[in-house]
Amino acid sequence: MERCECVAEVRRRVEKARRDGFSVALVPTMGYLHEGHLALVREARQRGSFVVMSIFVNPLQFGPNEDYARYPRDLERDAALAAEAGVALLFHPSAEEMYPEPNLTQIEVGKLGKILCGASRPGHFRGAATVVGKLFNIVGPDDAYFGLKDYQQYLIIRQMAHDLNFPVRVIGVPIVREDDGLAKSSRNVFLTPQERAEAVLLNVSLAEAEEEIRQGLRQARKVEEGIRRRLEQTQGRVDYIEVRDASTLAEVEAIEGKVVIALAVYFGSTRLIDNRIIDLDTPAAEA
Amino acid sequence: MERCECVAEVRRRVEKARRDGFSVALVPTMGYLHEGHLALVREARQRGSFVVMSIFVNPLQFGPNEDYARYPRDLERDAALAAEAGVALLFHPSAEEMYPEPNLTQIEVGKLGKILCGASRPGHFRGAATVVGKLFNIVGPDDAYFGLKDYQQYLIIRQMAHDLNFPVRVIGVPIVREDDGLAKSSRNVFLTPQERAEAVLLNVSLAEAEEEIRQGLRQARKVEEGIRRRLEQTQGRVDYIEVRDASTLAEVEAIEGKVVIALAVYFGSTRLIDNRIIDLDTPAAEA
Repeated sequence: MERCECVAEVRRRVEKARRDGFSVALVPTMGYLHEGHLALVREARQRGSFVVMSIFVNPLQFGPNEDYARYPRDLERDAALAAEAGVALLFHPSAEEMYPEPNLTQIEVGKLGKILCGASRPGHFRGAATVVGKLFNIVGPDDAYFGLKDYQQYLIIRQMAHDLNFPVRVIGVPIVREDDGLAKSSRNVFLTPQERAEAVLLNVSLAEAEEEIRQGLRQARKVEEGIRRRLEQTQGRVDYIEVRDASTLAEVEAIEGKVVIALAVYFGSTRLIDNRIIDLDTPAAEA
Repeated sequence: MERCECVAEVRRRVEKARRDGFSVALVPTMGYLHEGHLALVREARQRGSFVVMSIFVNPLQFGPNEDYARYPRDLERDAALAAEAGVALLFHPSAEEMYPEPNLTQIEVGKLGKILCGASRPGHFRGAATVVGKLFNIVGPDDAYFGLKDYQQYLIIRQMAHDLNFPVRVIGVPIVREDDGLAKSSRNVFLTPQERAEAVLLNVSLAEAEEEIRQGLRQARKVEEGIRRRLEQTQGRVDYIEVRDASTLAEVEAIEGKVVIALAVYFGSTRLIDNRIIDLDTPAAEA
């Protein structure tokens, strides 16, 4: 695996890979890698691509009172994991390399970026879309891989690529979970043992909600209330619990077709997200 | 010259040109071509590029009370002029091809887009940056050519390319003028004979302002007042007359270094713009 910190060098390396006949895949991450990230790499490897992973904790997508400074970082550990998973090129730029001066230009994602996580994190998705747009232009990938844990982010990046005609296929990869069902997240390290134990209920309550829906419950508000009651047994503070259309994130009253149940819950100052996609036109996956 | 209306076809044609060893140049226009546009094509041809010209009257950059509907269009005449100038591929998409549904994603250009023309045309530069970003992604050019008559647009696109790491060199080409000095513009056809005669004073007053500055006037407000008095002799309605830093468009009190004098004036409902770049560190060009 090669490593580089500068834009010009990434371009040279990718150009060479293209000359050698490879398609190019991008796996954008903020580092502190876990199995969720490595699943993205494996997916890209299966298609035979030259895999570029970026590791960049993007200041633009953190609000002033968020956890940019304390976001966990461990570049050497990440590099070892990336190499082992089959990353060909690790791009880990400094903030100065990505933003030599403050960006005047930003990619605005409209209403999709203002709801759910965007409501409690104003500017978050604008920052995420802007840095992903930059990475698309730096790497020039054929495919880009995103975890479905950040489902709203995945939809927004897909929308951005479509709206701005980026010649990039945006591919979503299913959530990877701990053995007890908690979605893998770099932020899980912040949980106290009690919070860690309680956080399991995020996935449990989503699974129960799917079960209720499969058994006939169609009122989105009732589904949300059921999850909320379950989570009231924890010390978690609910940011949102929402049943939404899985393609547009539009609000839903009566559940039909394909929906996503998305939630965000604070444990202390750690904000966890999780979701479950339920397609009533196809049978349930294993719970 | 080949012509095409769809994104996928442009990509195929450009890919072929690249395989044949050409660099690729983009000349984005709204059509109704004049010598200003053709100068962009000639500049690109001189570098030996495969020249793609787009003709697209972009609804996104017109305000609700602006002249989108009446903006002059003549595709067959344009195609003949483009072919003669050496365009290799003319891309003239429909609004449906460019915006299959309303764009949720937009490229915001920040403070650079809110001043001068942006102040009287809110959303104009967001629309322009968004469509140029789309064209960059559709065509994938090495170079893109813009006329310096739209000086603010040129700076904004250059800033966008830099901020978002588009691998595109943005090249500005000097204003082409009628014999009497009026800057060439597709909108000049809307002028009545009297307005057309008076419009000459835009360039005359800019030349006089440069002369005053070369002779020692340094107060930006005085320069602006001089131009305003000159234009009061016409039926034109001044939108703005501004001396600004030529790189940042920041406001200027005492003129030094490199400045741009930019103006916008309505004749009837037709809005004309013009500008003059004055670099005090280099001698005057011919007036």
